[in-house]
Amino acid sequence: MRYEAPLNDFLFLLFDVLGVEQLQHHDKYAEATPDLIGAILSEMGKFSADVIQPTNQAGDIQGCTLDPETHDVTTPETFKNAYTSFVEAGWTSLDAPVEYGGQGLPHVLKFIVDEMVCSSNMAFGMYAGLTHGAISALFAHGSDELKSIYLEKLVSGEWTGTMCLTEPQCGSDLGMIRTRATPRDDGSYSLEGSKIWITGGEHDLTSNIVHLVLAKLPGAPDTSKGISLFVVPKFLENGERNGVYCGGLEHKMGIKGSATCVMNFEGATGWLVGAPNDGLRAMFTMMNEARLMVGMQGLGISEMAFQESLGFALDRLQGRALRGAENPESPADPIIVHPDVRRMLVRQKVVNEGMRALALFTGHQLDISVSHPNQESRQVADDMVQLLTPVVKAFLTDEGFTNANLGLQVLGGAGYTSDWPLEQLVRDARITKIYEGTNGIQAMDLVGRKLGLAGGRAISALFALIENFITEDEEVPHAKELRAALNRLQEATSWIATNGAVDPEQAGAVATPYLRLMALTVIAYLWSRMSAVASRKSAMGEGTQALMNGKVLSAQFYYDKVLPETEGLLTDILSGEGGMMGLKEDYWAA
Amino acid sequence: MRYEAPLNDFLFLLFDVLGVEQLQHHDKYAEATPDLIGAILSEMGKFSADVIQPTNQAGDIQGCTLDPETHDVTTPETFKNAYTSFVEAGWTSLDAPVEYGGQGLPHVLKFIVDEMVCSSNMAFGMYAGLTHGAISALFAHGSDELKSIYLEKLVSGEWTGTMCLTEPQCGSDLGMIRTRATPRDDGSYSLEGSKIWITGGEHDLTSNIVHLVLAKLPGAPDTSKGISLFVVPKFLENGERNGVYCGGLEHKMGIKGSATCVMNFEGATGWLVGAPNDGLRAMFTMMNEARLMVGMQGLGISEMAFQESLGFALDRLQGRALRGAENPESPADPIIVHPDVRRMLVRQKVVNEGMRALALFTGHQLDISVSHPNQESRQVADDMVQLLTPVVKAFLTDEGFTNANLGLQVLGGAGYTSDWPLEQLVRDARITKIYEGTNGIQAMDLVGRKLGLAGGRAISALFALIENFITEDEEVPHAKELRAALNRLQEATSWIATNGAVDPEQAGAVATPYLRLMALTVIAYLWSRMSAVASRKSAMGEGTQALMNGKVLSAQFYYDKVLPETEGLLTDILSGEGGMMGLKEDYWAA
Repeated sequence: MRYEAPLNDFLFLLFDVLGVEQLQHHDKYAEATPDLIGAILSEMGKFSADVIQPTNQAGDIQGCTLDPETHDVTTPETFKNAYTSFVEAGWTSLDAPVEYGGQGLPHVLKFIVDEMVCSSNMAFGMYAGLTHGAISALFAHGSDELKSIYLEKLVSGEWTGTMCLTEPQCGSDLGMIRTRATPRDDGSYSLEGSKIWITGGEHDLTSNIVHLVLAKLPGAPDTSKGISLFVVPKFLENGERNGVYCGGLEHKMGIKGSATCVMNFEGATGWLVGAPNDGLRAMFTMMNEARLMVGMQGLGISEMAFQESLGFALDRLQGRALRGAENPESPADPIIVHPDVRRMLVRQKVVNEGMRALALFTGHQLDISVSHPNQESRQVADDMVQLLTPVVKAFLTDEGFTNANLGLQVLGGAGYTSDWPLEQLVRDARITKIYEGTNGIQAMDLVGRKLGLAGGRAISALFALIENFITEDEEVPHAKELRAALNRLQEATSWIATNGAVDPEQAGAVATPYLRLMALTVIAYLWSRMSAVASRKSAMGEGTQALMNGKVLSAQFYYDKVLPETEGLLTDILSGEGGMMGLKEDYWAA
Repeated sequence: MRYEAPLNDFLFLLFDVLGVEQLQHHDKYAEATPDLIGAILSEMGKFSADVIQPTNQAGDIQGCTLDPETHDVTTPETFKNAYTSFVEAGWTSLDAPVEYGGQGLPHVLKFIVDEMVCSSNMAFGMYAGLTHGAISALFAHGSDELKSIYLEKLVSGEWTGTMCLTEPQCGSDLGMIRTRATPRDDGSYSLEGSKIWITGGEHDLTSNIVHLVLAKLPGAPDTSKGISLFVVPKFLENGERNGVYCGGLEHKMGIKGSATCVMNFEGATGWLVGAPNDGLRAMFTMMNEARLMVGMQGLGISEMAFQESLGFALDRLQGRALRGAENPESPADPIIVHPDVRRMLVRQKVVNEGMRALALFTGHQLDISVSHPNQESRQVADDMVQLLTPVVKAFLTDEGFTNANLGLQVLGGAGYTSDWPLEQLVRDARITKIYEGTNGIQAMDLVGRKLGLAGGRAISALFALIENFITEDEEVPHAKELRAALNRLQEATSWIATNGAVDPEQAGAVATPYLRLMALTVIAYLWSRMSAVASRKSAMGEGTQALMNGKVLSAQFYYDKVLPETEGLLTDILSGEGGMMGLKEDYWAA
């Protein structure tokens, strides 16, 4: 099936709901006119369907291969041409800094482009995706010299970048890193060590690969405060092959077109990025961005799964509508007439549109945080981005996986076979709940760091935002249920603040349901906003009636059948750790 | 990792909670003494770990292959020996009829054996699993002549059996079957047609395969009332090859060791089983049994995922306990100290033990329904089995898949690679939500047929059972929360009865959350019972203290963190179809 980009929904969110056209009044985004944005999105919609999507299944079947002699990695054969076209069309440079050849457009556009790329082929999207993080880290923390050497070619897509963090003995706990960087006389460093799970660590798409590597300087503390960041290119400026080699590929459940490499650093030459022992901060520049991108991966797959299962449900004839045949001249009705099938389809659509609203809301805040003329407005927006980043990452990937599975379920046995793309979507989506910090780590980040940010400034702002929305107008759709959900979130937040202060394990034990409660509540707020906008436009005869009516109906479904989960989440949270932290060995062995 | 059968839990449930030892006072089960039962389960625990489990990963990697010339299917090379040992040890005949060489033991034992087999290798278990259904159908509906030809060899495992239902144009809607059976003069029939998704349709484990095939007689009505059941062996009694051939294998996401065949009937010789046009009834004999077995598949995988992830969490060092290092001499603490990881592990364990309680409760009722001397007791038990069969199938497979994913999540990136068994468990588990009737169809069966059974007799009996339990004793653990859950289930049931009568789509639209609400409530009842038994035994110094204390703590977790989901489920149900059945084409296209 051909991917069809949900352009109407993108435009509705950007302009009717979020007011992204205001960004053009900020100097940084003066060129981001609605016309340009519309044209870019429409172009990427076509590019994704025409160029990227056809590489998806072949990439899964063929996967990547390593030549153990040369250490070369070959990507699926369709990837090379698609990557070249992607670079030529300028998709790698969309929101990259103008001074290094980027287009300097708002990040929210990049969010949408990520969604479309991932709907079409998530594994393919990762080569440019990780590069983007490397660009941001170098731009924010690199010296002018390093920037001048690397940034232009990364921005243009001529080279790709990686993030080399994980080692066999440390994934989430980066204090345990063993890779060592020894200073040389010429200001460079010699790196020794082994990294695993390196996306795009080696491949055949570009002539050079630029690794950003976490390592320890001699005598650095044995904690996460002793980590430094280095840039280590595959080929040095003089064309010499650097001592960094792929030692193996992971055998993964999915994203088989993405080369996930063991990378060995054997006296590789590197240069320090930022200050010594300050690597974690630089790493978080990449990581926060990557977390938002992974959220978009979840959404991208979720959208494709919805489209595939909708197409199937409209076609497949089986059984009869309970109210009587809808297709009496055919041997059976299409399965979309069955309430349980329809329920799965509407849920996918409504949750996808809600997740998209959350993501673009966050992306828009990100743009405000770097472009608004007013410092306080930038700060408020930045707080919101920090608060919502773990929510976007975890909720969009949890629900992305759930929706891919709902899509598969609509297809039944067909969905379980590789004759249809659903089972691949499920396998591909599964990793998004894990990498760039597992979703449990996102939840810990939310309750452990983001709630307390600047004395709770971010969460208070979120409460005020929803509160003001409910009270500013008498006709807020679903105001009563939104108020109830907000109360639940506030009660849960107070409980965590009180009990987590005494015992951090009380906060840790309920972090996951708390993140979910926040996501569902913020999305409820956004569904009310969308419903209000749609009603208003519909009453004024603006916009497409079907789209506007659909938004009102979808909001109703969200409030009826998605938001109620928050009732049980609160009960769960208020029970805290409930004795589980005291369980001993004999509990497990009994 | 080596599978360790949860024998203590089996014995606790069978004897301390359910009182299965009472079955030996029924003539049919006079030999089913606790000692014999204990010995059998212990033996199967060892057999599963020693013989079956070692075939699991190899089976996934190797899969099944079809020789297009000979139509022969080769199973993974480790399967043949394991199957032979399985047959020699008598595991195929456990609860099969004594008159055909079976051991005639209670079905509840077979449930437990199924769980253990599926923990070790679900794909392997399917060859004997489907055979069991064929035995039951032939035993219940076949003529004495057919029984004498086929049953002994199926019971002994010398031959296997299949269920040939699905065709390309009909999966759930069997009225659309096109396979034709034409009578011959000698009383046999000639079958023509093509079946898909036939588990074990062709393989190299046994010398013969006995297909039970749904087909239409000439002039039969074009609905599910026009279907007849036939037995079609691969080899006829005279040794001649019958005209039934494997035309292809499905390429599946998982259960790759199970041969899922396209079967072509090319003038194959078959014999009618039961009355003409009465095939659906015979089919349901197989199907109901298969549904319960699929529930055990979900549980079996769920148990193995729990064991694997528990082992990993006890070993893997990463980060520090929030309350302070537990392992100060090591570089980090095992990840089980982290609240969110522990939460995932306890949830797996508590849900698994709750699902096991539900399954064995149902299995015990099945045994009572066929062995109790009192007709009314048999009827009550049979009602309960009919009511709970869709609940066991759907809930145990939904949660089995969820738990396999929780297990994978505990392992993080490692879980996503084939270096660990979790990703295979997830892929294998995924089909259980689909086959033998999708979980949506189970939910429709529950609300559309089982609730109304004999004027609501079954559901009323369930309510009375829980009601009496709560009121019979002042010290029922969690009585208040159990009462609240029961009230929710009763309110939802009334809503469905009232609104479903007016508009069946109202019932259909909430069938899935209703099934879930019932499952969670019945399991809450069973957790209260388990907690009560454990407290009593603990107070009297009986049983293992760790097991008894663990049950009390697990019940608490279930009530704190699993049951609260029912709050939102009720809200969802009371919103009915909420307008979604009226959505038109333009809603999807907008």
